[in-house]
Amino acid sequence: MKNFIYDIPTKLYFGKNQIEHLPNLINEFGKKVLLTYGGGSIKRNGLYDTILALLPECEMIELAGIEPNPRIETVRKGAELCKTHDIDVVLAVGGGSTIDASKVMAAAAKFDGDPWELVKQPDLIQDALPLIDVLTLSATGTEMNASGVITNFATKEKIGTRSYHMYPYASICDPTYTFSVSKHQTAAGTADIMSHTFEIYFSHEEEVFIQDRLAEGILNACIHYLPIALQEPENYDARANLMWASTLALNGLTSFGKGGPWTCHPIEHVLSAYYDITHAVGLAILTPRWMAYILNDQTVERFAMYAEKVWNIPSAGDPYAAARLAIDKTYQFFLDAGLPMTLPEVGITSDEFFDEMATAAASRLENAYVPLNKNDVVNILQACMEPKAM
Amino acid sequence: MKNFIYDIPTKLYFGKNQIEHLPNLINEFGKKVLLTYGGGSIKRNGLYDTILALLPECEMIELAGIEPNPRIETVRKGAELCKTHDIDVVLAVGGGSTIDASKVMAAAAKFDGDPWELVKQPDLIQDALPLIDVLTLSATGTEMNASGVITNFATKEKIGTRSYHMYPYASICDPTYTFSVSKHQTAAGTADIMSHTFEIYFSHEEEVFIQDRLAEGILNACIHYLPIALQEPENYDARANLMWASTLALNGLTSFGKGGPWTCHPIEHVLSAYYDITHAVGLAILTPRWMAYILNDQTVERFAMYAEKVWNIPSAGDPYAAARLAIDKTYQFFLDAGLPMTLPEVGITSDEFFDEMATAAASRLENAYVPLNKNDVVNILQACMEPKAM
Repeated sequence: MKNFIYDIPTKLYFGKNQIEHLPNLINEFGKKVLLTYGGGSIKRNGLYDTILALLPECEMIELAGIEPNPRIETVRKGAELCKTHDIDVVLAVGGGSTIDASKVMAAAAKFDGDPWELVKQPDLIQDALPLIDVLTLSATGTEMNASGVITNFATKEKIGTRSYHMYPYASICDPTYTFSVSKHQTAAGTADIMSHTFEIYFSHEEEVFIQDRLAEGILNACIHYLPIALQEPENYDARANLMWASTLALNGLTSFGKGGPWTCHPIEHVLSAYYDITHAVGLAILTPRWMAYILNDQTVERFAMYAEKVWNIPSAGDPYAAARLAIDKTYQFFLDAGLPMTLPEVGITSDEFFDEMATAAASRLENAYVPLNKNDVVNILQACMEPKAM
Repeated sequence: MKNFIYDIPTKLYFGKNQIEHLPNLINEFGKKVLLTYGGGSIKRNGLYDTILALLPECEMIELAGIEPNPRIETVRKGAELCKTHDIDVVLAVGGGSTIDASKVMAAAAKFDGDPWELVKQPDLIQDALPLIDVLTLSATGTEMNASGVITNFATKEKIGTRSYHMYPYASICDPTYTFSVSKHQTAAGTADIMSHTFEIYFSHEEEVFIQDRLAEGILNACIHYLPIALQEPENYDARANLMWASTLALNGLTSFGKGGPWTCHPIEHVLSAYYDITHAVGLAILTPRWMAYILNDQTVERFAMYAEKVWNIPSAGDPYAAARLAIDKTYQFFLDAGLPMTLPEVGITSDEFFDEMATAAASRLENAYVPLNKNDVVNILQACMEPKAM
């Protein structure tokens, strides 16, 4: 097991009506609040009104319209609002995009240069405004980690930045706020959770027994509860298990002692930067093709373990057969959840940028679980153009 | 899933040579250090010298000889030293007893009354000196929780107290410090880890998918790595997995969303308060008898799940048979690890205090997984007098 430091300062309030803690949490910092949110679903479902009613004494400055794949221009706008209005605390209400963008706004509020510098050079983040969030989507795990991913379409870059200063001070995680999440977003969010888990689970560090079992438990939970949540959107236990899975998949617990040699995220980040597709859908499309592409004598035992522990496929005798069946089941699971599973379905109908995108992605895959070069990435992208033969 | 708050302020430094962080951590608080430890094993294995060499500028006040089942008299002594010497930070080096006692000393240093009041009434703990610990035994999980258990032999009470103020500020968890732990202590510590996991795993909250899988993973790790650690005391991965299991078994992650309806600990606390036996050995003796005693139509499905997930015993068709086999395997596992598995072997040769002890224990078992009354506890204790028929 590798060395690690477990130091997570975020306070996570999980469950029904935990929003009641919000006034005390905000009051620890002051009255001037930057309220950030996305497309307005929080107005339709009543959460916006609930929050305003809970904070009658606060001066609320609002930044609405934070987009999926949040943009550096939006971060610049938020940072400027923080400075202009001398904001005390940022309150982000939404999913991964809103919270990620708000983290970088909070850091940029304490920085004199352009916020994009903080994305390119995380070391420049030396301070941040306190951030409190109310989570409305089970997906990215941003509610309990120090990372944020920002897109710059001008430079065709989508980059994650990270700093201890960007941990949320507190996260309100009430699964009932996800009751109104659409089937598509629920499935995509679950694909994101599963992808985070895969990116860390598939590593060469073998003596990390508890981390591996925890990862399998997160995958089991996604596989068990996603179909329930799709059938019964207001099933509390299904929504709660998916929300808790989203947090645990990326708050460090699955990677402590082993690190995470990520592959699909670097490739997907390039896809999103070129085509602005839904992050998690890109991951769902890439994942089974990546798995099939890297299946070899060095990886087959771990894939057979995945088959056995996650899909109950006995691997005795023929680990390759078990591994292939598990990869097929992974593909079929996403397909059954209603996700588009080819690139043309998300608008990428030609391979004209594959070389360019693969070059950019491959520069970050030298230390992947199985290191990949440009040609490997092109081959994986080509495989994503057609439905997978089962 | 029940509501919960995940808020763990402890910074845990896990792995080889993490002691190098100690000077910076101590320096955050000052130069006057109360150094607490137990029977002197840290002098034999060199850790004591290492620590003094790392902190040449500190004024070290020492409190050695903290006993297993640490006593309130020792806590009083430590609190007095803190006050007399105007201590800045408590540095506890040892296992659960040393760290538990030091937590209550740190709290009592900021309290005007008798420290025993803080054990009886945790609400009285309103502040504490910062506590940093160096863990030398994988067992209690105290390195990342807010609890401490103190014994008062005068009143025949052994009680756990708890306060957010008692979380360690930082814990140094280097598995190499457990290389010199005896076979007996290694086995007993693992029994403690497993008992914590059982106390929480066996509950009526069923929709806690990830928590259950994590608990099974901790049990799997104990079952896999304890025999290795007994055979090869310096096997790093075995020691590391046991140490990480000890932390995760009681830092909240297995109980978030479900609570923990503990049974064996309340009974064992009474046993220890009367007889000063080794806590974890008492737990190992009690656990399989308790399991067998509460096996019934309401619990059999969960025991069958335990059988399947932890011991790979298929439960199809006959859950009672699977459950009984798993309970037998639990007993046999402790026996094979060299633990005494009857009360007479630990010096409790008569049942003269069983009624008295059972009365005390039963008052805390009304909300247990299966609620137990005085007669139930007497029956379980009686079953502990003889080797279990397999």
